[in-house]
Amino acid sequence: MMPEGESMLYIGIDLGGTNIAAGLVDEEGKIIKRLSTPTAMPRPYAPIIKDMADLAARLVKEAGYALADVAAVGVGMPGITIDKTGMVPICVNLNWRDVPFRDEFQKHLNLPVYISNDATVAGFAEAMVGASAKTSSSVMLTLGTGVGGGIVIHGKPYSGKHCVGGELGHIIIRMDGEPCTCGNRGCLERYASATALIREGRKAMEADADTLMWKLCGGDLARVNAKTVVDAAKQADSVAMKVFQDYVKALATGILCVVNFIDPEMVVLGGGVALAGDFLLHAVRDALAPMIFAKTMPYASVELAQLGTDAGIIGAAMLGKI
Amino acid sequence: MMPEGESMLYIGIDLGGTNIAAGLVDEEGKIIKRLSTPTAMPRPYAPIIKDMADLAARLVKEAGYALADVAAVGVGMPGITIDKTGMVPICVNLNWRDVPFRDEFQKHLNLPVYISNDATVAGFAEAMVGASAKTSSSVMLTLGTGVGGGIVIHGKPYSGKHCVGGELGHIIIRMDGEPCTCGNRGCLERYASATALIREGRKAMEADADTLMWKLCGGDLARVNAKTVVDAAKQADSVAMKVFQDYVKALATGILCVVNFIDPEMVVLGGGVALAGDFLLHAVRDALAPMIFAKTMPYASVELAQLGTDAGIIGAAMLGKI
Repeated sequence: MMPEGESMLYIGIDLGGTNIAAGLVDEEGKIIKRLSTPTAMPRPYAPIIKDMADLAARLVKEAGYALADVAAVGVGMPGITIDKTGMVPICVNLNWRDVPFRDEFQKHLNLPVYISNDATVAGFAEAMVGASAKTSSSVMLTLGTGVGGGIVIHGKPYSGKHCVGGELGHIIIRMDGEPCTCGNRGCLERYASATALIREGRKAMEADADTLMWKLCGGDLARVNAKTVVDAAKQADSVAMKVFQDYVKALATGILCVVNFIDPEMVVLGGGVALAGDFLLHAVRDALAPMIFAKTMPYASVELAQLGTDAGIIGAAMLGKI
Repeated sequence: MMPEGESMLYIGIDLGGTNIAAGLVDEEGKIIKRLSTPTAMPRPYAPIIKDMADLAARLVKEAGYALADVAAVGVGMPGITIDKTGMVPICVNLNWRDVPFRDEFQKHLNLPVYISNDATVAGFAEAMVGASAKTSSSVMLTLGTGVGGGIVIHGKPYSGKHCVGGELGHIIIRMDGEPCTCGNRGCLERYASATALIREGRKAMEADADTLMWKLCGGDLARVNAKTVVDAAKQADSVAMKVFQDYVKALATGILCVVNFIDPEMVVLGGGVALAGDFLLHAVRDALAPMIFAKTMPYASVELAQLGTDAGIIGAAMLGKI
């Protein structure tokens, strides 16, 4: 219980394969203070979790607060998490299997601990204080190295009965299509991730020596990123535009699945590719509209994420507020 | 409120393009009495809804009850329904647009009226008293002329923010694939409906004069149905087996989307094709297992529907029990 008349603080931790980012967050989702430390892989889970707890304690102390001011610690991580038991059955990047996360964390810091998937946490952050604030249901697609899904239903993060839901990067939009890391073919993330945009951009460059993309990357294929394709498309380079349009069509196909399946109030686009901003947003909305099943009915608005990479910390912190 | 010590009855109505089927249903979902009348299209919505109300009244009377014994009327229909307002914005088969269903119905019968989509109602029926009873979340796929989706979350039918969710027949599994009635290409129902199985069965027959399917349909392509393909596949006819396996692969791809997206406790298969029974069920489970994203994690069990066509009446009736 929050002491009457006092507002509580929340610690949010974004656990990645490279860095552990932590933030002290207030009731309104504002990050008051941040700290980070390298994940320093490879190493066992115990010292990583101890570092996380130490980081959390240091965060509180350096911000001039006491642990008693903190309601809870929330952690988002790139894996499957079971909040009910505090277990992390799988976290591929960290090479974790069946890690008793909460128990381990609480050995070092005596606070309530909530855990969730990082894409889910990002979607939840947007739903609490970002693009989808004030909606009761939303789905966020994080368009990065892969495609992550963050589902919020009835105002709460939703990961399904067995905590394996929200894997929107691995719905199949093109049977027998591009091979995916998951073992299947034609998964959404093979077409709608930054990785896909880069792959197709490079392919198009190799087939066309005149595309503006060559100039934008200084003639170096290794320097091609999502921005290269987007910037060239923005300048109406026809080769880049084709790559971008194909990307948008695939993304719209994924969003259509979201709309036709759970019909959320809003679909939020985040991750690196979403930095393309309105150029992406308008293209996606235009591609989606004619695909809608019941064309005269209202459907989810598609919006850009607002919290950027802070969503990981904020959403994790807000897990303690549900 | 249910009068103390007395159990209430519910009326469920399954409104189709050909028939209106109504049932008086008890607390346990058992149909006590049934009546039906032709939908008698084409005609305006008002006389159809009056016929539905008259049918409901007759049902109660002929079963020896009074209207006071009935808690509510529930109606499932092949369209988009907004239970909150009692409106039916679209019902294609009946040529309905913006029909004030509840108001119209209650002109004739003074009972609470609940409305929902027919596929949603079927999924809800299974979740209340059928295959998925005792689960808190399930998705039913009705494999008929098209593919319908019936989502139940937290024990309640789920149709989304704008009531356009659950259209699982129109998630795209093969971009640029078979043209669909919805205007897109490659929708799940182009590959996983009975219609698809029949289409592919006929195609395979035209390419092979020796397949057992010719014998099973008496040499008449017009008589080919889903059972023709299934029966020939059961007898190990290689041509039919290939058609069936392709069908199963597409269906498993659709189920994978369900699992990776909302991770329900159970996926229920209903509709005409599901009459293939364990032959279908085992094939689908076998195709799905290696496609699962987190292969060591538990995921939705896939089961056959148990209520058959009664699901329409039972699920509609149970809408009054939520």
